[in-house]
Amino acid sequence: MEGMMMHRPLLVSNILEYGMNAHRKAGITSVRTEGDIHSYTYPEAGARIAQLAHGLRRRGVQIGDRVATLAWNGYRHFELYYAVGGIGAICHTINPRLSAEQLIYIVNHAEDKLLFLDTTFVPVIAAVAEHLPDDLTFVIMTDRAHMPDTPFDALCYEELLEGEEEAIAWPELDENTACGLCYTSGTTGHPKGALYSNRSSVLHALTLVVSQKRSFEEGKPILPVVPLFHVNAWGLPYVAPMIGASLVMPGPALDGPSLFKLMDQEKVYSAWGVPTVWMGLLGEIKAQGRIPEGFGDVVIGGSAAPRSMIEAFETRGVAVGHAWGMTEMSPIGTHGCLPAWMEELPFEERIDAKTKQGRRCYGVDLKIVDEDGKVLPQDGEAVGELYVRGNAVVAGYFRNPEASADSHDADGWFATGDVASVDPDGFLSIQDRAKDLIKSGGEWISSIDLENAATAHPAIAQCAAIGVPHPRWDERPVLVAVAAGEDRPTAEDLHELLSEHFAKWQMPDDIIWLDSLPMTATGKVSKLTLRKTLGDYQHPDLRVSA
Amino acid sequence: MEGMMMHRPLLVSNILEYGMNAHRKAGITSVRTEGDIHSYTYPEAGARIAQLAHGLRRRGVQIGDRVATLAWNGYRHFELYYAVGGIGAICHTINPRLSAEQLIYIVNHAEDKLLFLDTTFVPVIAAVAEHLPDDLTFVIMTDRAHMPDTPFDALCYEELLEGEEEAIAWPELDENTACGLCYTSGTTGHPKGALYSNRSSVLHALTLVVSQKRSFEEGKPILPVVPLFHVNAWGLPYVAPMIGASLVMPGPALDGPSLFKLMDQEKVYSAWGVPTVWMGLLGEIKAQGRIPEGFGDVVIGGSAAPRSMIEAFETRGVAVGHAWGMTEMSPIGTHGCLPAWMEELPFEERIDAKTKQGRRCYGVDLKIVDEDGKVLPQDGEAVGELYVRGNAVVAGYFRNPEASADSHDADGWFATGDVASVDPDGFLSIQDRAKDLIKSGGEWISSIDLENAATAHPAIAQCAAIGVPHPRWDERPVLVAVAAGEDRPTAEDLHELLSEHFAKWQMPDDIIWLDSLPMTATGKVSKLTLRKTLGDYQHPDLRVSA
Ligand SMILES: Nc1ncnc2c1ncn2[C@@H]1O[C@H](COP(=O)(O)OP(=O)(O)OP(=O)(O)O)[C@@H](O)[C@H]1O
Ligand SMILES: Nc1ncnc2c1ncn2[C@@H]1O[C@H](COP(=O)(O)OP(=O)(O)OP(=O)(O)O)[C@@H](O)[C@H]1O
Ligand SMILES: [Mg+2]
Ligand SMILES: [Mg+2]
Repeated sequence: MEGMMMHRPLLVSNILEYGMNAHRKAGITSVRTEGDIHSYTYPEAGARIAQLAHGLRRRGVQIGDRVATLAWNGYRHFELYYAVGGIGAICHTINPRLSAEQLIYIVNHAEDKLLFLDTTFVPVIAAVAEHLPDDLTFVIMTDRAHMPDTPFDALCYEELLEGEEEAIAWPELDENTACGLCYTSGTTGHPKGALYSNRSSVLHALTLVVSQKRSFEEGKPILPVVPLFHVNAWGLPYVAPMIGASLVMPGPALDGPSLFKLMDQEKVYSAWGVPTVWMGLLGEIKAQGRIPEGFGDVVIGGSAAPRSMIEAFETRGVAVGHAWGMTEMSPIGTHGCLPAWMEELPFEERIDAKTKQGRRCYGVDLKIVDEDGKVLPQDGEAVGELYVRGNAVVAGYFRNPEASADSHDADGWFATGDVASVDPDGFLSIQDRAKDLIKSGGEWISSIDLENAATAHPAIAQCAAIGVPHPRWDERPVLVAVAAGEDRPTAEDLHELLSEHFAKWQMPDDIIWLDSLPMTATGKVSKLTLRKTLGDYQHPDLRVSA
Repeated sequence: MEGMMMHRPLLVSNILEYGMNAHRKAGITSVRTEGDIHSYTYPEAGARIAQLAHGLRRRGVQIGDRVATLAWNGYRHFELYYAVGGIGAICHTINPRLSAEQLIYIVNHAEDKLLFLDTTFVPVIAAVAEHLPDDLTFVIMTDRAHMPDTPFDALCYEELLEGEEEAIAWPELDENTACGLCYTSGTTGHPKGALYSNRSSVLHALTLVVSQKRSFEEGKPILPVVPLFHVNAWGLPYVAPMIGASLVMPGPALDGPSLFKLMDQEKVYSAWGVPTVWMGLLGEIKAQGRIPEGFGDVVIGGSAAPRSMIEAFETRGVAVGHAWGMTEMSPIGTHGCLPAWMEELPFEERIDAKTKQGRRCYGVDLKIVDEDGKVLPQDGEAVGELYVRGNAVVAGYFRNPEASADSHDADGWFATGDVASVDPDGFLSIQDRAKDLIKSGGEWISSIDLENAATAHPAIAQCAAIGVPHPRWDERPVLVAVAAGEDRPTAEDLHELLSEHFAKWQMPDDIIWLDSLPMTATGKVSKLTLRKTLGDYQHPDLRVSA
């Protein structure tokens, strides 16, 4: 029997309207590409979003059309999210760190109708423009006064809004209507598109608030360092107007000093981003001997948060939430709030818990399976491939039946490609990406575990453990590291530190020092590149002694 | 274009599974009708709920069947919510304070298949049993040792569970499948049934957490004084396992001393209920000169919270959330958290804001309209009939096409029957129920405003303003009051207090003292009864002077 309740579609336009009406004093502060700081309230944002929506329609944008963005975190990018999604079109955020080849691929694959870009990215587009569709319209996200010279025709964002009405009756779309599109960075093959719906975006936001509760307080500003150009800035553009938190948009400068200054100025309470960003901020925090004013909460995800980083924040009174997710999950899968009883544990045990990748959010189901697809117990011991299910998880890839066919098991669970265990308290431990696991003598070694332990060495600023082919052992781990100072410990020096947690055969055979590690478009160490770099590497035990 | 995301049904069974898995140390503590205190965790609850679900199926309960309850707040009642809803049947909670006639009406109207009752209610059922359907099966919610003698055949709850499996694979129902049924108390005509769905119940819980955020903290116990037998105890049985808060179930004793003792013992953080309950608790708080340990948050709704009550809590460090809702809204429509900037206001201004009925929850739309259905501005001035819309609002009444036809406007908004204004900050002010408004000389007077102001008089413990027919003025307000002590001020004495906020013609002509006020089944002053009591009342100006 069906209930007799209203059926109101879950729409992103509804979040905006709620924010404008229920949280009219909260809003967005942005560092602009124009160089200054811009602030407005949600009602003011809403008025401009209405104008933008009218402007898009005037340019012929219809339900289902893709509208691309190539932009930093700023209020205009936020406006695009809502204006495009609100009228039933699809906001296709493009990661500017992708290679030219990938960029060309996805714009053509998505058949974008318009492409909005920050002035910063004019050269990026100029370099590839001839390979983009002829009927693609470019819009530069600035006003007339700041319009740059472009070798391609381009409209001006502010002119698109000019004269349009500041109110709009958003269409009552079906809640399954697509509103967003984001391609994986494509470290493996062509990028694959995740096509988010209004329903998935609203439910993702709701469940994020319910799960990562501590980070969200009406009136306490949130800083998404995570880009709006990749997986919805982890859902924050949808969460913030819903709960009445202001957003602080950092623009292009994501180095430690710039972030510190902005956070201090805007009294940011909760900041979200990948570990590399926090390395920079922590450097500045140490240099200044204090944390930015109001800073109380940091959410770290995208890659494993090193234990030393978690400690550095927690000892300074900043609560760490270590989360895990994927483009294919909208992206948040787990949250990093400890259960109440764990908050009472001694410091070391709390840090232990926080090095794990958090607990599943409401609405996200996790299972780990062995090679035969048999479900393994969540006992903290069993390690298997991680599968997920939920309203904010992809059912397939956009216009990619081959990739879609491979991505789910027979019961419809999505294969994450991560290898993990789940402990009895529900904490996920990502051991590795399946492709990054190191296989030595028939046994697996977790590169994440090695990296985490090695980062505790004061001489090591950053590192990656790579499995390098070995004729006898199949693969042997090698550590590629960036030095923190002058000191360059040997592999043997390191073994002392590692011996507490690792058996001898699990330890890296060698350390290779680099000035910096290659990064992927999503801000992670690119092990693919490192593996290529190490192409002709010889293990110490195989070297012909001179 | 449709998004390419999984479609997972929003099901109450999923909340339970999440609570069992993600919050395994939280659970439920109940004062039992057996006289003792019972505690268990959500995983333990889940095991028994699985048993109950198997037991229900064994008794022939199928998708869509109604299973009635007549019970206090306790863990077995909670188990029924999830076991019945989980298998696609409908948990029909019955308010034991209804009249025998109403009880007979709704059990027959709902065609309940089973009726679960606490031992307390054996006499209630005994008195009406012959008027209930012949094939109705009764189950007494206790164990064999505590089974009372009954003049009707009855099963024993614990025996229904015995031997059943402690695990269950919940069916993957359509999310619109009904899971709950609650009849309005029927102060106007026959009771009308609101038929909640899985979707509406899950979304109601999510939006409640997102809106009334302050009340919900993982690990901080919640006390629903609001009954599970009426509108889902305001959604708390669904919220608590979702966020990992424990529930403290008070059983039958809701007097001040009992509540105080229980709250103190269980370190209740957030307590939810109607004003009359808090009058009792505040009495005990004053007597003991302290608040119960851990108490920090109270949500008041169902009737207007008097200003003096709000002050009494706030001066003692208990944050008040003044909420508004209806059976037809699952029930929460507005929440009582102040926006951050208001929290900075001086005490008096904060209390002013809290005497209003809060701001709309995410997912709830409000509009006020004039007699012609024209939408009025939300400027704090305009007063009109309040209409609502949302996923947790009824689309009609269960098996009642006549009532359903009257209940919504042409655009599908539900008519609340309340008369209200909404101020620019989004605060709802319920002026009155349309039928309780007092019409004097062509102008309306809000009975709620009068009551609120009069309650500030130290001599008045409780009161109700009633419009009594008057040959010249149509109606004139009369105050019916319960004295706090020996003192009995006259209407003129009261006018001094009221003159600050009311014009002379708005003030009550008279005060009538009663020992207590008649209450409705939902714990509100029954103005219907009072109007009847005042049947032959003569206004002072019409009395023939002796
Ligand atoms: N907290 C974390 N700890 C360890 N790994 C994480 C964490 N959060 C995310 N990851 C890794 O990031 C992956 C998801 O990243 P994302 O979807 O942004 O793109 P990507 O997987 O890096 O790129 P591509 O799919 O193109 O290779 C996860 O599958 C997991 O391997
Ligand atoms: N905070 C509040 N302030 C004033 N009135 C309130 C408040 N909360 C609820 N109410 C009143 O209670 C009504 C909803 O109550 P409920 O659905 O529990 O049953 P009822 O309306 O009292 O009974 P019935 O519909 O059978 O007459 C609202 O329509 C409103 O009039
Ligand atoms: Mg990936
Ligand atoms: Mg009513």
